[in-house]
Amino acid sequence: MKAVVLNKFGEPINFRIEKIASRELKACELKINVKATSVNPVDLKIRSGVAETFAPEFPAVLHGDVAGIVEEAFPGSSFSKGDEVYACAGGVKGLSGALCESMIVDQKLVAKKPKQLSMAEGAALPLVSITAWEALVDRVNVEPGQTVLIHGAAGGVGHIAVQLAKALGAIVYTTASTSEKMQMGKDLGADYAINYKEMSVEDYVKHYTNGKGFDVVFDTVGGDNMEKSFQAVRNSGQVACIVGSGEHDMTPLYIKSATYHGVLMLLPMLTNEGREHHGEILKRIAKMVDHKVLKPVLDGEKFSFSSIGEAHTHLESGKAIGKVVAVNDL
Amino acid sequence: MKAVVLNKFGEPINFRIEKIASRELKACELKINVKATSVNPVDLKIRSGVAETFAPEFPAVLHGDVAGIVEEAFPGSSFSKGDEVYACAGGVKGLSGALCESMIVDQKLVAKKPKQLSMAEGAALPLVSITAWEALVDRVNVEPGQTVLIHGAAGGVGHIAVQLAKALGAIVYTTASTSEKMQMGKDLGADYAINYKEMSVEDYVKHYTNGKGFDVVFDTVGGDNMEKSFQAVRNSGQVACIVGSGEHDMTPLYIKSATYHGVLMLLPMLTNEGREHHGEILKRIAKMVDHKVLKPVLDGEKFSFSSIGEAHTHLESGKAIGKVVAVNDL
Repeated sequence: MKAVVLNKFGEPINFRIEKIASRELKACELKINVKATSVNPVDLKIRSGVAETFAPEFPAVLHGDVAGIVEEAFPGSSFSKGDEVYACAGGVKGLSGALCESMIVDQKLVAKKPKQLSMAEGAALPLVSITAWEALVDRVNVEPGQTVLIHGAAGGVGHIAVQLAKALGAIVYTTASTSEKMQMGKDLGADYAINYKEMSVEDYVKHYTNGKGFDVVFDTVGGDNMEKSFQAVRNSGQVACIVGSGEHDMTPLYIKSATYHGVLMLLPMLTNEGREHHGEILKRIAKMVDHKVLKPVLDGEKFSFSSIGEAHTHLESGKAIGKVVAVNDL
Repeated sequence: MKAVVLNKFGEPINFRIEKIASRELKACELKINVKATSVNPVDLKIRSGVAETFAPEFPAVLHGDVAGIVEEAFPGSSFSKGDEVYACAGGVKGLSGALCESMIVDQKLVAKKPKQLSMAEGAALPLVSITAWEALVDRVNVEPGQTVLIHGAAGGVGHIAVQLAKALGAIVYTTASTSEKMQMGKDLGADYAINYKEMSVEDYVKHYTNGKGFDVVFDTVGGDNMEKSFQAVRNSGQVACIVGSGEHDMTPLYIKSATYHGVLMLLPMLTNEGREHHGEILKRIAKMVDHKVLKPVLDGEKFSFSSIGEAHTHLESGKAIGKVVAVNDL
């Protein structure tokens, strides 16, 4: 079958369309006829080699997010041929990815696609909605009335996190760098949008929380931004971060008796532990989408598998608003 | 009344016995005839100036831990004159400490002393048992069967944490540097004691957890030890640390999708928020002591308020095993 493969880390130009061998289905696996995928920052890092530690073996088929139609299910599966499904189920060490004609996946990671979504919309959701769920529900356990500050509301995880936090009853604050991205945050349900280029952390903590800090800070940006998150959280509050590498001054977490959650959504894929939970989250997310509590926002640019390098370049540019998706034209 | 006061930060020799003014009781306050106190590492740091940020104003009366007899209660108090009580209730910014004849405290921080304990034993418990409770119960929420690694089992917080983790049903591992301290850990109920000078983190994670890591790591040591805690925790595990200042490589928390809790027990004293909870914890601890689930271990050396500097020097030497206490001889 045809696949987009990578034979070395580096620039997007390294993607090649090649024929690769198919393999037989094993127990608990599904073969999905891939209709669409989406690009996540981790895909860029795997492609460039920055996240080599998570990368599948060469020739590597990247991308975890998939929406498609079940072509074949192992005997006894809860899925049937023809089911429209979505998942984040590969593109990392040990698991082949979505950039191919047919993807073989562990059924534990899969759920039926929200009915009203197109394949491209379905493929936009898995990684980001599972990440937001793990951070805000499983780890932080956001309660109604809590103040939740979300850094990066126009990003993939951020735009789902705003809607999820709102659905959980939180008072939602978002930070962004442009009025367009601020508006997107508000359109998704944020109560307040903060332009972080115009307002310091100290200023917005003072203005919005009377100097006390936010109950919860969800940092989808990471790096130097983590210090801002530690500054913005209240005493006994919680910070969750999905890109929390490197050295950081942890003193504020101590002085504030605060909790920090590192969130690496890839873990069940990498370790084969806790995969059922990802399938369960996607079931819940599908219900929320069906009941119009949550929706994916797609970036305006159109890409396909044969132009996947351009899709990577677009996400890398920082200009994308919402999710960058690609439909299968192999 | 007489008090041991500090007029400048520095060595233990700076402690002076002086007459200080008494003040009137305000609503919700108790006057406690102080019988004993204990020395905690934070008292050393406040005295030396390292923790100046938490220090009471000069002339400063240090020490939070107190056991004594209620001399006077505000009208309507749930305490009565003559009650034997214990608390961690001062010795920090805004709150005068225990090194005096009579200490005025917020009754929310106070509970009745465990019946079978001497005043010195009672004074050994408040700060360390509240800290262990906040870490293992309030924050981590230790569940039966979980593996809990406690760094520093022979220390004040550590020796209570071992007993508390055991009472919660955990499988308890402790680290220590000498066979005497390892034996103390086992005597207190630890299932396994590890000599960290003879076994690397990698080795004991492999030996005791098959390389997976511990469900919970409670780090009462801090500093460079935090990296060891991050190394020892399992995927999706939790680390709690009571001295978590400074820069640390947070990458393992991300890679493992792990949670970190900074625990600063002083916060309710410093902020006047959540003080009731400290009184409640001490009530629970008293019940545990009464039912022989938990006990304080006192270091063999005897000190009084007039030799409090020597008590500080002893704790600072690292040679103390269990709590260093001092009885009131003012």
